[in-house]
Amino acid sequence: MPTRLPEREFDARLTSVRERIAESDADAGVWFDATSIEYLIGFAHLQTERPVVLGVTPGRCEITVPRLEVERVSGNSRIDRVHSYFDYPGGEPIETVVKMLREMGADSVVADADGAPGTMGYEGPELSEFLESEPRSWVARMRWAKSDAEVELIRESAKWANLGHRHLAEYVEPGAHPATASQRASLEASRAMLDALGDRYVPRTRGDGPVHAGFISGEQTALPHGHTANRYLEEGDVLITGASANVDGYRSELERTMFVGEPDDDGRHYFELMCEVQTIAIEALGPGVRIADVDRAVWEYFEEQGVADLARHHVGHNIGLGGHEPPYVDRGWGAHCEAEATSYEERDAVMEPGHVYTIEPGLYTEEAGYRHSDTVAITDDGIEMLTYFPRDLEANVIR
Amino acid sequence: MPTRLPEREFDARLTSVRERIAESDADAGVWFDATSIEYLIGFAHLQTERPVVLGVTPGRCEITVPRLEVERVSGNSRIDRVHSYFDYPGGEPIETVVKMLREMGADSVVADADGAPGTMGYEGPELSEFLESEPRSWVARMRWAKSDAEVELIRESAKWANLGHRHLAEYVEPGAHPATASQRASLEASRAMLDALGDRYVPRTRGDGPVHAGFISGEQTALPHGHTANRYLEEGDVLITGASANVDGYRSELERTMFVGEPDDDGRHYFELMCEVQTIAIEALGPGVRIADVDRAVWEYFEEQGVADLARHHVGHNIGLGGHEPPYVDRGWGAHCEAEATSYEERDAVMEPGHVYTIEPGLYTEEAGYRHSDTVAITDDGIEMLTYFPRDLEANVIR
Repeated sequence: MPTRLPEREFDARLTSVRERIAESDADAGVWFDATSIEYLIGFAHLQTERPVVLGVTPGRCEITVPRLEVERVSGNSRIDRVHSYFDYPGGEPIETVVKMLREMGADSVVADADGAPGTMGYEGPELSEFLESEPRSWVARMRWAKSDAEVELIRESAKWANLGHRHLAEYVEPGAHPATASQRASLEASRAMLDALGDRYVPRTRGDGPVHAGFISGEQTALPHGHTANRYLEEGDVLITGASANVDGYRSELERTMFVGEPDDDGRHYFELMCEVQTIAIEALGPGVRIADVDRAVWEYFEEQGVADLARHHVGHNIGLGGHEPPYVDRGWGAHCEAEATSYEERDAVMEPGHVYTIEPGLYTEEAGYRHSDTVAITDDGIEMLTYFPRDLEANVIR
Repeated sequence: MPTRLPEREFDARLTSVRERIAESDADAGVWFDATSIEYLIGFAHLQTERPVVLGVTPGRCEITVPRLEVERVSGNSRIDRVHSYFDYPGGEPIETVVKMLREMGADSVVADADGAPGTMGYEGPELSEFLESEPRSWVARMRWAKSDAEVELIRESAKWANLGHRHLAEYVEPGAHPATASQRASLEASRAMLDALGDRYVPRTRGDGPVHAGFISGEQTALPHGHTANRYLEEGDVLITGASANVDGYRSELERTMFVGEPDDDGRHYFELMCEVQTIAIEALGPGVRIADVDRAVWEYFEEQGVADLARHHVGHNIGLGGHEPPYVDRGWGAHCEAEATSYEERDAVMEPGHVYTIEPGLYTEEAGYRHSDTVAITDDGIEMLTYFPRDLEANVIR
């Protein structure tokens, strides 16, 4: 079943945090973050104002959930016991968590935060008001290097993203409305994925399909985080597209700069520069490479070409269970390491097999933006391009 | 222009926090939360690993953003000065924030958090490492009571949600696939909204449309946070739907329990109970009503009917810029107030004009769930139903 993470992955992850707990002075590890909980035990939930809290000791794995999640978590084979409170604020979630931890024999814990995040208006109290709690974010660091099984899910995601992007390229034309082109592409790619995978598809959405394809257009592309304008496409529009698919929680990222009709000289010029610098970044990737060096290589090229003032952001980020996750491809890693050197952070500066990077250096003029994004895995001896929609100008002009 | 929040709203909000800053011992107010920043100055941004930080003194309003947001924030008339760092982690965002605050003359601040949230892997440092910082969440509390202009946007949202839901009801039939029915309904309602509003539509999405309509079906409805199953609809399926529309950042919530074909006796029974208790909750709403009393009224009815064990959550929550926001319709408010009584929290226990509640008591058997959700505004002398899709059984059976 290539579209679901194998059970053994969770066993390995739990074993790893148990080893770390054993090495620490604490009795238990505690996680409040939804993605960390999903990573450790495979229980995915929507993080709301109702805390969900995982406790792990060498011998036990227990969880506190609001009443509405009891049935969903009960089938999870890694959970030895489910504790619940009715709802928030009446149900006193943290008091329930403290009781759970004490019954697990934990008087001191290492926790990913000193309480649940303030999502949707949740307000404290902090865990340390009740027991000894030290902050520690093992899981965030563990997620940097993906296993082969995780990369396989991202590879699968890239396939359906490519289909969504192909549909998008087909539906984009002068006179088309962005909402119609995008949502039609998303719908058709989602149905294809759902029908192709059948029972092997792991439900992950509510109302939406698993594939999303869309774009920003025209003057909005000059803004890296622009919005989709409410106007029909015209000859001469520049688009920055995006397509992804959710495969058992894992994602890929595919973005292309496209032209509606022939690009003008400026458009052609900046597109070629952007493509060239993306190639430089991709060619710089590999195991053992200093992450900061990839961002520096891009920056040097921008300076040589006299366009550094048109850059707005670093080269990229990792992707997996999170749409953006560390390590980011940023010149700052070196400095970060020197300032707060610990054994983890020294290692952080270097690319390792299993890291999955988005490579997306961009240039932004006053009129338009130019950015491709590809998802690239670091392998034992090089890289693997996980996204593969053509990058060249010819393939990205809509005629 | 009913689909955009008037400028004067932001002036009033800034004036309000400035009064509170003047009353405090601090020199400035600081906000890290994206929704709070949007609420105060009307600059909406995607919260990522790159902190965006607003500083307000009696005379100045300045903001620190990553380089990629500079152009988007520069047109905001309320911002006196934009500070930027290139990117994270290289750009040292908090150092930039501290420099900004010092240049604003602030040595001590009240802040909504002691640093940026850990979104997408952001990690510290805390603000209090650099200057005196005291936690204070004024904005969260200010957002409870919406102005007339805010309620108008939620009313507008409910209109387009209703259209999306109408399309959904039309496309649901035995043999239909949930992804197709949902995404087609979303697309058509989105296009209708975009075309109807034209230039009055404020772009808020990237790739998606502003209207979303969808549902969970069959056994997944037994789980309040279930997922959309990958199977065709069949006669006898129970659906729990959801529809909303984004109107300048504001949302409504419309959910219906629907039947594909004739409901069986159980389905009919639980539907009628759910409808009846939703009516009880709606009739209990009003200005001056203790929030906890509404949840208690529902609970008492459930106990009378012997179905309290089928409840999974409280009655509802507020909605506005956030999809879930306090105050929640929960029995816990009273207890919360007594335990930590402050002047705000005492007042919190009571419904006030401008509160906008989702009313969604649910019942969940082993086979299926039964829940409607309506969005209801508290007015000076009663309530206004903002959502209005028919609630009765006949209107919710697909034949």
